[in-house]
Amino acid sequence: MNESHDREIIGGKLLVIGGAEDKYNERRILKKFLKLSGGEKAEVLIVPVASDFPEFAADVYTQAFRNLGVANPRVLRATSRQDVFQADPDELLDGVTGVFMTGGDQMRLVSLLGGTKFAEKLRHMVRESPIVLAGTSAGAAGMSTSMIVRGESTSHPQKDSVRLSPGLGFLKNIIIDQHFTERGRISRLITAVSYNPYNLGVGIDENTAIILDGQGVLEVYGQGAATIVDGSQISYNEIAEVGDHESFSVCGVQLHVLRDGLFYQYRDRHPLQPRQEFLLPDIG
Amino acid sequence: MNESHDREIIGGKLLVIGGAEDKYNERRILKKFLKLSGGEKAEVLIVPVASDFPEFAADVYTQAFRNLGVANPRVLRATSRQDVFQADPDELLDGVTGVFMTGGDQMRLVSLLGGTKFAEKLRHMVRESPIVLAGTSAGAAGMSTSMIVRGESTSHPQKDSVRLSPGLGFLKNIIIDQHFTERGRISRLITAVSYNPYNLGVGIDENTAIILDGQGVLEVYGQGAATIVDGSQISYNEIAEVGDHESFSVCGVQLHVLRDGLFYQYRDRHPLQPRQEFLLPDIG
Repeated sequence: MNESHDREIIGGKLLVIGGAEDKYNERRILKKFLKLSGGEKAEVLIVPVASDFPEFAADVYTQAFRNLGVANPRVLRATSRQDVFQADPDELLDGVTGVFMTGGDQMRLVSLLGGTKFAEKLRHMVRESPIVLAGTSAGAAGMSTSMIVRGESTSHPQKDSVRLSPGLGFLKNIIIDQHFTERGRISRLITAVSYNPYNLGVGIDENTAIILDGQGVLEVYGQGAATIVDGSQISYNEIAEVGDHESFSVCGVQLHVLRDGLFYQYRDRHPLQPRQEFLLPDIG
Repeated sequence: MNESHDREIIGGKLLVIGGAEDKYNERRILKKFLKLSGGEKAEVLIVPVASDFPEFAADVYTQAFRNLGVANPRVLRATSRQDVFQADPDELLDGVTGVFMTGGDQMRLVSLLGGTKFAEKLRHMVRESPIVLAGTSAGAAGMSTSMIVRGESTSHPQKDSVRLSPGLGFLKNIIIDQHFTERGRISRLITAVSYNPYNLGVGIDENTAIILDGQGVLEVYGQGAATIVDGSQISYNEIAEVGDHESFSVCGVQLHVLRDGLFYQYRDRHPLQPRQEFLLPDIG
Protein backbone atom coordinates (compact mmCIF):
# COMPACT_ATOMS: atom_id res chain seq x y z
CA MET A 1 0.00 0.00 0.00
CA ASN A 2 1.63 3.19 -1.13
CA GLU A 3 -1.71 4.88 -1.60
CA SER A 4 -1.82 8.05 0.44
CA HIS A 5 -4.90 8.21 2.57
CA ASP A 6 -6.74 11.28 3.71
CA ARG A 7 -5.21 12.67 6.81
CA GLU A 8 -6.95 14.06 9.83
CA ILE A 9 -6.38 13.94 13.60
CA ILE A 10 -3.23 16.00 13.90
CA GLY A 11 -2.72 17.18 17.46
CA GLY A 12 -5.33 15.13 19.26
CA LYS A 13 -5.94 11.50 19.94
CA LEU A 14 -8.95 9.29 19.41
CA LEU A 15 -9.99 6.55 21.81
CA VAL A 16 -12.49 4.38 19.99
CA ILE A 17 -14.24 1.85 22.25
CA GLY A 18 -16.20 -1.21 21.15
CA GLY A 19 -18.93 -0.70 23.76
CA ALA A 20 -19.66 -2.15 27.21
CA GLU A 21 -16.44 -0.88 28.75
CA ASP A 22 -16.08 -1.69 32.44
CA LYS A 23 -17.28 1.28 34.54
CA TYR A 24 -17.28 -0.24 38.01
CA ASN A 25 -14.37 -2.60 38.57
CA GLU A 26 -10.99 -2.55 36.89
CA ARG A 27 -12.07 0.32 34.59
CA ARG A 28 -8.94 0.04 32.44
CA ILE A 29 -10.37 1.95 29.50
CA LEU A 30 -11.88 4.82 31.48
CA LYS A 31 -8.59 5.13 33.38
CA LYS A 32 -6.72 5.18 30.08
CA PHE A 33 -9.02 7.91 28.82
CA LEU A 34 -8.29 10.03 31.88
CA LYS A 35 -4.57 9.35 31.74
CA LEU A 36 -4.44 10.43 28.09
CA SER A 37 -6.55 13.49 29.01
CA GLY A 38 -4.02 14.77 31.50
CA GLY A 39 -4.49 12.61 34.57
CA GLU A 40 -5.45 14.59 37.63
CA LYS A 41 -5.73 17.74 35.56
CA ALA A 42 -8.21 16.21 33.12
CA GLU A 43 -11.14 18.44 32.19
CA VAL A 44 -13.86 16.17 30.86
CA LEU A 45 -16.95 16.79 28.77
CA ILE A 46 -19.54 14.03 28.53
CA VAL A 47 -21.61 13.95 25.32
CA PRO A 48 -24.56 11.62 26.00
CA VAL A 49 -26.74 12.74 23.08
CA ALA A 50 -26.68 9.36 21.31
CA SER A 51 -28.52 7.79 24.21
CA ASP A 52 -32.24 7.18 24.49
CA PHE A 53 -31.86 8.24 28.12
CA PRO A 54 -29.21 10.97 27.96
CA GLU A 55 -29.71 12.10 31.57
CA PHE A 56 -29.18 8.57 32.79
CA ALA A 57 -26.09 8.09 30.59
CA ALA A 58 -24.73 11.43 31.79
CA ASP A 59 -25.21 10.37 35.41
CA VAL A 60 -23.50 7.01 34.91
CA TYR A 61 -20.39 8.57 33.36
CA THR A 62 -20.38 11.57 35.71
CA GLN A 63 -20.28 9.16 38.64
CA ALA A 64 -17.69 6.94 36.96
CA PHE A 65 -15.35 9.86 36.27
CA ARG A 66 -15.89 11.32 39.75
CA ASN A 67 -14.95 7.97 41.25
CA LEU A 68 -11.74 8.21 39.25
CA GLY A 69 -10.93 11.69 40.58
CA VAL A 70 -12.47 14.12 38.08
CA ALA A 71 -14.16 16.76 40.24
CA ASN A 72 -16.73 18.20 37.89
CA PRO A 73 -17.24 16.62 34.51
CA ARG A 74 -19.18 18.87 32.14
CA VAL A 75 -22.16 17.52 30.19
CA LEU A 76 -23.63 18.53 26.84
CA ARG A 77 -27.34 18.38 27.66
CA ALA A 78 -29.30 18.18 24.43
CA THR A 79 -32.19 16.14 23.11
CA SER A 80 -32.69 18.17 19.93
CA ARG A 81 -30.68 20.17 17.41
CA GLN A 82 -32.20 23.32 18.92
CA ASP A 83 -30.60 22.39 22.25
CA VAL A 84 -27.24 21.99 20.52
CA PHE A 85 -27.63 25.30 18.68
CA GLN A 86 -28.40 27.04 21.97
CA ALA A 87 -25.49 25.48 23.83
CA ASP A 88 -22.37 27.65 24.03
CA PRO A 89 -19.47 25.73 22.42
CA ASP A 90 -16.87 27.86 24.19
CA GLU A 91 -18.42 27.30 27.60
CA LEU A 92 -18.62 23.57 26.95
CA LEU A 93 -15.25 23.04 25.31
CA ASP A 94 -12.77 25.71 26.40
CA GLY A 95 -10.18 24.12 28.63
CA VAL A 96 -11.51 20.63 28.05
CA THR A 97 -8.83 17.95 27.63
CA GLY A 98 -11.07 14.91 27.09
CA VAL A 99 -14.48 14.48 25.44
CA PHE A 100 -16.44 11.26 25.94
CA MET A 101 -19.32 10.34 23.61
CA THR A 102 -21.60 7.66 25.06
CA GLY A 103 -23.45 4.83 23.33
CA GLY A 104 -26.99 4.84 22.04
CA ASP A 105 -27.94 5.43 18.41
CA GLN A 106 -25.23 6.75 16.11
CA MET A 107 -27.87 8.24 13.82
CA ARG A 108 -29.17 10.36 16.68
CA LEU A 109 -25.63 11.41 17.62
CA VAL A 110 -24.76 12.52 14.12
CA SER A 111 -28.11 14.08 13.24
CA LEU A 112 -28.01 16.17 16.43
CA LEU A 113 -24.36 17.24 16.21
CA GLY A 114 -23.53 17.25 12.48
CA GLY A 115 -23.01 20.72 11.03
CA THR A 116 -23.31 22.55 14.37
CA LYS A 117 -20.84 25.04 15.81
CA PHE A 118 -20.23 22.61 18.64
CA ALA A 119 -19.09 19.88 16.21
CA GLU A 120 -17.01 22.39 14.27
CA LYS A 121 -15.20 23.55 17.39
CA LEU A 122 -14.67 19.96 18.51
CA ARG A 123 -13.19 19.03 15.13
CA HIS A 124 -10.94 22.09 15.26
CA MET A 125 -9.73 21.14 18.75
CA VAL A 126 -8.94 17.56 17.71
CA ARG A 127 -6.95 18.89 14.78
CA GLU A 128 -5.14 21.69 16.58
CA SER A 129 -4.74 20.63 20.21
CA PRO A 130 -3.78 17.56 22.24
CA ILE A 131 -7.40 16.86 23.22
CA VAL A 132 -8.62 13.25 23.52
CA LEU A 133 -11.90 12.37 21.85
CA ALA A 134 -13.37 9.11 23.11
CA GLY A 135 -16.49 7.34 21.92
CA THR A 136 -18.05 4.06 22.91
CA SER A 137 -20.44 1.93 20.87
CA ALA A 138 -22.58 4.45 18.92
CA GLY A 139 -20.10 7.11 19.97
CA ALA A 140 -17.38 5.02 18.31
CA ALA A 141 -19.33 4.26 15.14
CA GLY A 142 -20.19 7.95 14.73
CA MET A 143 -16.52 8.97 14.45
CA SER A 144 -16.13 7.57 10.94
CA THR A 145 -16.68 9.52 7.76
CA SER A 146 -18.64 6.48 6.51
CA MET A 147 -20.58 5.20 9.47
CA ILE A 148 -22.33 1.86 9.79
CA VAL A 149 -25.93 2.63 10.70
CA ARG A 150 -27.35 -0.81 10.88
CA GLY A 151 -26.79 -4.23 9.49
CA GLU A 152 -27.57 -7.85 9.98
CA SER A 153 -25.15 -10.09 11.82
CA THR A 154 -23.91 -13.61 11.15
CA SER A 155 -25.20 -13.67 7.55
CA HIS A 156 -22.93 -13.88 4.53
CA PRO A 157 -21.51 -10.77 3.02
CA GLN A 158 -24.69 -9.51 1.38
CA LYS A 159 -25.12 -6.41 -0.74
CA ASP A 160 -27.59 -4.56 1.47
CA SER A 161 -26.77 -6.25 4.74
CA VAL A 162 -25.26 -3.03 6.01
CA ARG A 163 -26.18 0.60 5.55
CA LEU A 164 -23.64 3.38 5.61
CA SER A 165 -24.38 6.97 6.40
CA PRO A 166 -22.14 10.03 6.78
CA GLY A 167 -20.61 10.19 10.25
CA LEU A 168 -18.85 12.95 12.15
CA GLY A 169 -15.70 12.53 10.07
CA PHE A 170 -12.97 12.27 12.70
CA LEU A 171 -11.80 9.02 11.10
CA LYS A 172 -11.34 9.79 7.46
CA ASN A 173 -11.08 6.43 5.78
CA ILE A 174 -11.75 4.00 8.60
CA ILE A 175 -15.10 2.32 9.14
CA ILE A 176 -15.68 1.34 12.75
CA ASP A 177 -17.86 -1.53 13.88
CA GLN A 178 -18.41 -2.27 17.58
CA HIS A 179 -19.60 -5.14 19.83
CA PHE A 180 -17.72 -6.93 17.10
CA THR A 181 -17.10 -10.57 17.87
CA GLU A 182 -19.82 -10.54 20.55
CA ARG A 183 -22.40 -9.92 17.83
CA GLY A 184 -20.70 -11.83 14.99
CA ARG A 185 -20.27 -8.82 12.73
CA ILE A 186 -17.43 -9.95 10.47
CA SER A 187 -19.66 -10.39 7.41
CA ARG A 188 -21.19 -6.95 7.66
CA LEU A 189 -17.78 -5.32 8.05
CA ILE A 190 -16.47 -7.19 4.99
CA THR A 191 -19.55 -5.94 3.15
CA ALA A 192 -18.96 -2.35 4.28
CA VAL A 193 -15.33 -2.52 3.13
CA SER A 194 -16.33 -4.13 -0.18
CA TYR A 195 -18.50 -1.11 -1.05
CA ASN A 196 -15.29 0.87 -1.37
CA PRO A 197 -12.07 -0.91 -0.41
CA TYR A 198 -10.45 2.47 0.05
CA ASN A 199 -11.92 2.31 3.54
CA LEU A 200 -10.23 0.22 6.19
CA GLY A 201 -12.61 -1.74 8.41
CA VAL A 202 -11.90 -1.96 12.14
CA GLY A 203 -14.17 -4.13 14.29
CA ILE A 204 -13.73 -3.50 17.99
CA ASP A 205 -14.82 -5.90 20.72
CA GLU A 206 -16.56 -4.92 23.91
CA ASN A 207 -14.42 -3.51 26.73
CA THR A 208 -11.71 -2.92 24.14
CA ALA A 209 -10.44 0.22 22.48
CA ILE A 210 -8.16 1.42 19.76
CA ILE A 211 -6.08 4.50 20.36
CA LEU A 212 -5.20 6.56 17.30
CA ASP A 213 -2.36 8.97 17.82
CA GLY A 214 -2.85 11.01 14.68
CA GLN A 215 0.52 9.92 13.32
CA GLY A 216 -0.82 6.86 11.52
CA VAL A 217 -0.50 4.29 14.30
CA LEU A 218 -3.28 2.66 16.26
CA GLU A 219 -2.82 0.67 19.44
CA VAL A 220 -5.18 -1.98 20.75
CA TYR A 221 -6.06 -1.68 24.44
CA GLY A 222 -8.33 -3.72 26.67
CA GLN A 223 -9.92 -7.09 27.05
CA GLY A 224 -10.84 -8.19 23.53
CA ALA A 225 -9.47 -7.71 20.05
CA ALA A 226 -9.60 -5.29 17.18
CA THR A 227 -10.18 -7.06 13.88
CA ILE A 228 -8.74 -5.21 10.91
CA VAL A 229 -10.38 -5.85 7.52
CA ASP A 230 -8.08 -4.54 4.81
CA GLY A 231 -9.65 -4.63 1.36
CA SER A 232 -6.77 -3.01 -0.49
CA GLN A 233 -5.68 -6.34 -1.95
CA ILE A 234 -9.18 -7.39 -3.02
CA SER A 235 -8.73 -8.99 -6.42
CA TYR A 236 -12.33 -9.90 -7.19
CA ASN A 237 -15.48 -8.24 -5.90
CA GLU A 238 -18.99 -9.01 -7.09
CA ILE A 239 -20.78 -6.39 -5.00
CA ALA A 240 -21.58 -4.19 -7.97
CA GLU A 241 -22.85 -7.14 -10.00
CA VAL A 242 -25.43 -8.68 -7.67
CA GLY A 243 -28.93 -7.51 -6.87
CA ASP A 244 -30.08 -5.95 -3.62
CA HIS A 245 -30.10 -8.41 -0.71
CA GLU A 246 -28.05 -10.90 -2.73
CA SER A 247 -24.87 -12.39 -1.40
CA PHE A 248 -21.66 -11.79 -3.27
CA SER A 249 -18.18 -13.22 -3.68
CA VAL A 250 -15.11 -11.29 -2.67
CA CYS A 251 -11.50 -12.50 -2.87
CA GLY A 252 -8.31 -11.28 -1.29
CA VAL A 253 -9.53 -9.74 1.96
CA GLN A 254 -6.75 -9.44 4.54
CA LEU A 255 -7.62 -9.99 8.15
CA HIS A 256 -5.65 -9.15 11.28
CA VAL A 257 -6.88 -9.99 14.76
CA LEU A 258 -4.98 -7.74 17.15
CA ARG A 259 -5.11 -7.85 20.92
CA ASP A 260 -3.99 -5.63 23.77
CA GLY A 261 -0.59 -4.07 23.18
CA LEU A 262 -0.40 -4.65 19.44
CA PHE A 263 -0.06 -1.81 16.97
CA TYR A 264 -1.22 -1.28 13.42
CA GLN A 265 -0.17 1.35 10.93
CA TYR A 266 -3.50 2.44 9.57
CA ARG A 267 -2.10 4.60 6.79
CA ASP A 268 0.49 2.17 5.45
CA ARG A 269 -1.79 -0.68 6.42
CA HIS A 270 0.42 -3.16 8.15
CA PRO A 271 0.56 -4.61 11.64
CA LEU A 272 3.53 -3.84 13.83
CA GLN A 273 4.78 -6.67 15.92
CA PRO A 274 5.41 -6.08 19.60
CA ARG A 275 9.12 -6.70 19.37
CA GLN A 276 9.53 -4.82 16.13
CA GLU A 277 11.47 -1.61 16.52
CA PHE A 278 9.64 1.48 15.43
CA LEU A 279 9.62 5.09 16.39
CA LEU A 280 6.40 5.80 18.17
CA PRO A 281 5.79 8.75 20.42
CA ASP A 282 4.76 7.67 23.90
CA ILE A 283 1.00 7.51 23.80
CA GLY A 284 0.41 7.03 27.45
CA MET B 1 2.95 -20.07 -2.24
CA ASN B 2 5.38 -22.35 -3.94
CA GLU B 3 5.19 -24.85 -1.12
CA SER B 4 4.17 -28.22 -2.47
CA HIS B 5 1.29 -29.67 -0.55
CA ASP B 6 0.59 -33.29 0.05
CA ARG B 7 -1.32 -34.76 -2.79
CA GLU B 8 -4.20 -37.15 -2.67
CA ILE B 9 -7.46 -37.62 -4.60
CA ILE B 10 -6.14 -38.68 -7.94
CA GLY B 11 -8.82 -40.36 -10.00
CA GLY B 12 -11.88 -39.57 -7.93
CA LYS B 13 -13.74 -36.49 -6.91
CA LEU B 14 -14.86 -35.20 -3.54
CA LEU B 15 -18.16 -33.43 -2.98
CA VAL B 16 -17.94 -31.76 0.40
CA ILE B 17 -21.27 -30.36 1.62
CA GLY B 18 -21.80 -27.84 4.42
CA GLY B 19 -24.86 -29.64 5.78
CA ALA B 20 -28.64 -29.19 5.43
CA GLU B 21 -28.64 -29.76 1.69
CA ASP B 22 -32.08 -29.62 0.13
CA LYS B 23 -33.48 -33.16 -0.17
CA TYR B 24 -37.07 -32.45 -1.20
CA ASN B 25 -37.33 -29.51 -3.59
CA GLU B 26 -34.72 -28.24 -6.01
CA ARG B 27 -32.17 -30.77 -4.73
CA ARG B 28 -29.31 -29.17 -6.68
CA ILE B 29 -26.56 -30.78 -4.65
CA LEU B 30 -27.99 -34.31 -4.60
CA LYS B 31 -28.56 -34.02 -8.36
CA LYS B 32 -24.98 -32.85 -8.80
CA PHE B 33 -23.77 -35.84 -6.77
CA LEU B 34 -25.68 -38.23 -9.02
CA LYS B 35 -24.58 -36.47 -12.20
CA LEU B 36 -20.94 -36.70 -11.15
CA SER B 37 -21.53 -40.34 -10.18
CA GLY B 38 -22.61 -41.32 -13.68
CA GLY B 39 -26.15 -40.05 -13.99
CA GLU B 40 -28.63 -42.80 -14.71
CA LYS B 41 -25.95 -45.41 -14.29
CA ALA B 42 -24.97 -44.21 -10.82
CA GLU B 43 -24.41 -46.97 -8.27
CA VAL B 44 -24.74 -45.37 -4.85
CA LEU B 45 -23.64 -46.43 -1.38
CA ILE B 46 -25.05 -44.55 1.60
CA VAL B 47 -22.84 -44.43 4.72
CA PRO B 48 -25.05 -43.25 7.60
CA VAL B 49 -22.79 -44.34 10.44
CA ALA B 50 -22.16 -40.79 11.74
CA SER B 51 -25.82 -40.45 12.59
CA ASP B 52 -27.43 -41.01 15.97
CA PHE B 53 -30.27 -42.63 14.05
CA PRO B 54 -28.51 -44.38 11.18
CA GLU B 55 -31.59 -46.30 10.03
CA PHE B 56 -33.55 -43.09 9.79
CA ALA B 57 -30.73 -41.31 7.92
CA ALA B 58 -30.40 -44.27 5.58
CA ASP B 59 -34.13 -44.15 4.83
CA VAL B 60 -34.12 -40.42 4.15
CA TYR B 61 -31.29 -40.66 1.64
CA THR B 62 -32.53 -43.94 0.12
CA GLN B 63 -35.84 -42.23 -0.60
CA ALA B 64 -34.15 -39.07 -1.86
CA PHE B 65 -31.93 -40.98 -4.29
CA ARG B 66 -34.82 -43.21 -5.43
CA ASN B 67 -36.85 -40.09 -6.17
CA LEU B 68 -33.97 -38.99 -8.36
CA GLY B 69 -33.87 -42.26 -10.30
CA VAL B 70 -31.42 -44.49 -8.43
CA ALA B 71 -33.13 -47.88 -8.25
CA ASN B 72 -31.39 -49.52 -5.32
CA PRO B 73 -28.96 -47.50 -3.25
CA ARG B 74 -26.78 -49.70 -1.06
CA VAL B 75 -26.37 -48.92 2.64
CA LEU B 76 -23.51 -49.61 5.04
CA ARG B 77 -25.45 -50.71 8.11
CA ALA B 78 -23.22 -50.44 11.15
CA THR B 79 -23.52 -49.09 14.68
CA SER B 80 -20.22 -50.49 15.94
CA ARG B 81 -16.74 -51.27 14.69
CA GLN B 82 -17.67 -54.95 14.86
CA ASP B 83 -20.42 -54.30 12.33
CA VAL B 84 -17.93 -52.60 10.03
CA PHE B 85 -15.42 -55.44 10.44
CA GLN B 86 -18.11 -57.94 9.54
CA ALA B 87 -19.35 -56.03 6.50
CA ASP B 88 -17.90 -57.18 3.17
CA PRO B 89 -16.09 -54.23 1.54
CA ASP B 90 -16.26 -55.81 -1.89
CA GLU B 91 -19.98 -56.44 -1.69
CA LEU B 92 -20.55 -52.88 -0.51
CA LEU B 93 -18.16 -51.06 -2.83
CA ASP B 94 -17.59 -53.07 -6.01
CA GLY B 95 -19.23 -51.27 -8.89
CA VAL B 96 -20.17 -48.28 -6.78
CA THR B 97 -19.71 -44.90 -8.50
CA GLY B 98 -20.81 -42.63 -5.67
CA VAL B 99 -20.52 -42.86 -1.88
CA PHE B 100 -22.55 -40.53 0.34
CA MET B 101 -21.61 -40.04 4.02
CA THR B 102 -24.43 -38.49 6.05
CA GLY B 103 -24.30 -36.05 8.93
CA GLY B 104 -24.21 -36.80 12.64
CA ASP B 105 -21.08 -36.91 14.74
CA GLN B 106 -17.76 -36.91 12.91
CA MET B 107 -16.10 -38.59 15.87
CA ARG B 108 -18.47 -41.54 15.54
CA LEU B 109 -17.89 -41.66 11.78
CA VAL B 110 -14.13 -41.75 12.11
CA SER B 111 -13.94 -43.99 15.16
CA LEU B 112 -16.18 -46.56 13.43
CA LEU B 113 -14.51 -46.46 10.00
CA GLY B 114 -10.90 -45.47 10.68
CA GLY B 115 -8.41 -48.27 10.06
CA THR B 116 -10.97 -50.75 8.71
CA LYS B 117 -10.76 -52.63 5.44
CA PHE B 118 -13.83 -50.78 4.31
CA ALA B 119 -12.08 -47.40 4.73
CA GLU B 120 -8.94 -48.75 3.11
CA LYS B 121 -10.84 -49.94 0.05
CA LEU B 122 -12.73 -46.66 -0.16
CA ARG B 123 -9.49 -44.68 -0.03
CA HIS B 124 -8.02 -46.91 -2.69
CA MET B 125 -11.05 -46.37 -4.94
CA VAL B 126 -10.91 -42.58 -4.55
CA ARG B 127 -7.25 -42.67 -5.50
CA GLU B 128 -7.46 -45.11 -8.39
CA SER B 129 -10.92 -44.75 -9.91
CA PRO B 130 -13.35 -41.99 -10.93
CA ILE B 131 -15.58 -42.60 -7.91
CA VAL B 132 -17.30 -39.64 -6.21
CA LEU B 133 -17.09 -39.43 -2.44
CA ALA B 134 -19.65 -37.07 -0.93
CA GLY B 135 -20.07 -36.08 2.70
CA THR B 136 -22.43 -33.65 4.38
CA SER B 137 -21.95 -31.95 7.75
CA ALA B 138 -20.14 -34.54 9.92
CA GLY B 139 -19.53 -36.52 6.72
CA ALA B 140 -17.79 -33.44 5.33
CA ALA B 141 -15.76 -32.65 8.44
CA GLY B 142 -14.57 -36.26 8.64
CA MET B 143 -12.88 -36.11 5.24
CA SER B 144 -9.98 -33.98 6.51
CA THR B 145 -6.72 -35.31 7.83
CA SER B 146 -7.11 -32.78 10.67
CA MET B 147 -10.76 -32.78 11.55
CA ILE B 148 -12.58 -30.21 13.66
CA VAL B 149 -14.31 -32.17 16.42
CA ARG B 150 -15.92 -29.38 18.31
CA GLY B 151 -15.49 -25.75 19.00
CA GLU B 152 -17.24 -22.68 20.24
CA SER B 153 -18.81 -20.27 17.81
CA THR B 154 -18.80 -16.47 17.64
CA SER B 155 -16.00 -16.07 20.19
CA HIS B 156 -12.63 -14.60 19.35
CA PRO B 157 -9.90 -16.81 18.01
CA GLN B 158 -9.07 -18.58 21.25
CA LYS B 159 -6.40 -21.18 21.83
CA ASP B 160 -8.63 -24.05 22.85
CA SER B 161 -11.81 -22.89 21.17
CA VAL B 162 -11.52 -25.73 18.71
CA ARG B 163 -10.34 -29.28 19.00
CA LEU B 164 -8.77 -31.16 16.14
CA SER B 165 -8.67 -34.90 15.79
CA PRO B 166 -7.43 -37.17 13.02
CA GLY B 167 -10.02 -37.58 10.28
CA LEU B 168 -10.37 -40.05 7.42
CA GLY B 169 -7.64 -38.30 5.45
CA PHE B 170 -9.20 -37.81 2.04
CA LEU B 171 -8.34 -34.12 2.25
CA LYS B 172 -4.67 -33.96 3.06
CA ASN B 173 -4.07 -30.38 4.12
CA ILE B 174 -7.54 -28.89 4.15
CA ILE B 175 -9.58 -28.41 7.29
CA ILE B 176 -13.31 -28.40 6.63
CA ASP B 177 -15.85 -26.57 8.73
CA GLN B 178 -19.57 -26.77 7.98
CA HIS B 179 -22.82 -24.88 8.75
CA PHE B 180 -20.30 -22.12 8.45
CA THR B 181 -21.86 -18.67 8.33
CA GLU B 182 -25.12 -20.04 9.76
CA ARG B 183 -23.29 -20.81 13.00
CA GLY B 184 -20.76 -17.96 12.92
CA ARG B 185 -17.70 -20.21 12.79
CA ILE B 186 -15.10 -17.89 11.31
CA SER B 187 -13.17 -17.48 14.57
CA ARG B 188 -12.87 -21.20 15.20
CA LEU B 189 -11.67 -21.82 11.65
CA ILE B 190 -9.04 -19.08 11.99
CA THR B 191 -7.98 -20.77 15.23
CA ALA B 192 -7.78 -24.18 13.55
CA VAL B 193 -5.62 -22.74 10.75
CA SER B 194 -3.43 -20.87 13.23
CA TYR B 195 -2.46 -24.15 14.93
CA ASN B 196 -0.57 -25.00 11.75
CA PRO B 197 -0.95 -22.59 8.85
CA TYR B 198 0.15 -25.36 6.52
CA ASN B 199 -3.51 -26.35 6.55
CA LEU B 200 -5.98 -24.44 4.44
CA GLY B 201 -9.33 -23.74 6.13
CA VAL B 202 -12.52 -24.08 4.12
CA GLY B 203 -15.81 -23.14 5.76
CA ILE B 204 -18.84 -24.35 3.84
CA ASP B 205 -22.33 -22.96 4.26
CA GLU B 206 -25.48 -25.03 4.42
CA ASN B 207 -26.94 -26.31 1.14
CA THR B 208 -23.58 -25.54 -0.44
CA ALA B 209 -20.75 -27.78 -1.57
CA ILE B 210 -17.23 -27.68 -2.84
CA ILE B 211 -16.21 -30.09 -5.56
CA LEU B 212 -12.57 -31.12 -5.59
CA ASP B 213 -11.43 -32.63 -8.83
CA GLY B 214 -8.16 -34.05 -7.60
CA GLN B 215 -6.18 -31.79 -9.91
CA GLY B 216 -5.88 -28.96 -7.39
CA VAL B 217 -9.04 -27.03 -8.25
CA LEU B 218 -12.16 -26.71 -6.16
CA GLU B 219 -15.48 -25.36 -7.40
CA VAL B 220 -18.19 -23.84 -5.24
CA TYR B 221 -21.68 -25.10 -5.89
CA GLY B 222 -25.03 -24.31 -4.30
CA GLN B 223 -26.84 -21.68 -2.33
CA GLY B 224 -24.28 -20.23 0.06
CA ALA B 225 -20.57 -19.58 0.05
CA ALA B 226 -17.31 -21.31 0.77
CA THR B 227 -15.03 -19.16 2.91
CA ILE B 228 -11.36 -19.87 2.38
CA VAL B 229 -9.01 -19.08 5.27
CA ASP B 230 -5.45 -19.07 3.96
CA GLY B 231 -2.85 -18.76 6.70
CA SER B 232 0.19 -19.06 4.47
CA GLN B 233 0.87 -15.31 4.72
CA ILE B 234 0.44 -15.16 8.50
CA SER B 235 3.18 -12.85 9.71
CA TYR B 236 2.46 -12.90 13.42
CA ASN B 237 0.78 -15.62 15.43
CA GLU B 238 0.52 -15.69 19.21
CA ILE B 239 -1.16 -19.08 19.52
CA ALA B 240 1.92 -20.77 20.94
CA GLU B 241 2.48 -17.96 23.44
CA VAL B 242 -0.88 -17.75 25.19
CA GLY B 243 -2.36 -20.03 27.81
CA ASP B 244 -5.21 -22.46 27.31
CA HIS B 245 -8.56 -20.75 26.69
CA GLU B 246 -6.81 -17.44 26.12
CA SER B 247 -7.46 -15.38 23.05
CA PHE B 248 -4.57 -14.63 20.73
CA SER B 249 -3.53 -12.20 18.03
CA VAL B 250 -2.90 -13.31 14.48
CA CYS B 251 -1.93 -11.09 11.55
CA GLY B 252 -1.99 -11.62 7.82
CA VAL B 253 -4.85 -14.07 7.39
CA GLN B 254 -6.21 -14.07 3.85
CA LEU B 255 -9.91 -14.54 3.37
CA HIS B 256 -11.87 -15.37 0.24
CA VAL B 257 -15.65 -15.63 0.18
CA LEU B 258 -16.55 -17.66 -2.89
CA ARG B 259 -20.00 -18.35 -4.19
CA ASP B 260 -21.59 -20.67 -6.73
CA GLY B 261 -19.53 -21.01 -9.88
CA LEU B 262 -16.27 -19.67 -8.51
CA PHE B 263 -13.10 -21.73 -8.44
CA TYR B 264 -10.11 -21.84 -6.15
CA GLN B 265 -6.76 -23.50 -6.69
CA TYR B 266 -6.26 -25.20 -3.37
CA ARG B 267 -2.68 -26.26 -4.02
CA ASP B 268 -1.37 -22.96 -5.37
CA ARG B 269 -3.82 -21.14 -3.09
CA HIS B 270 -5.40 -18.53 -5.25
CA PRO B 271 -8.92 -17.87 -6.41
CA LEU B 272 -9.72 -18.15 -10.09
CA GLN B 273 -12.05 -15.56 -11.47
CA PRO B 274 -14.99 -16.71 -13.55
CA ARG B 275 -13.76 -15.06 -16.73
CA GLN B 276 -10.17 -16.04 -16.16
CA GLU B 277 -8.90 -18.54 -18.67
CA PHE B 278 -7.60 -21.73 -17.20
CA LEU B 279 -7.36 -25.30 -18.21
CA LEU B 280 -9.83 -27.27 -16.20
CA PRO B 281 -11.15 -30.66 -17.11
CA ASP B 282 -14.94 -30.72 -17.35
CA ILE B 283 -16.12 -31.60 -13.88
CA GLY B 284 -19.73 -32.07 -14.76
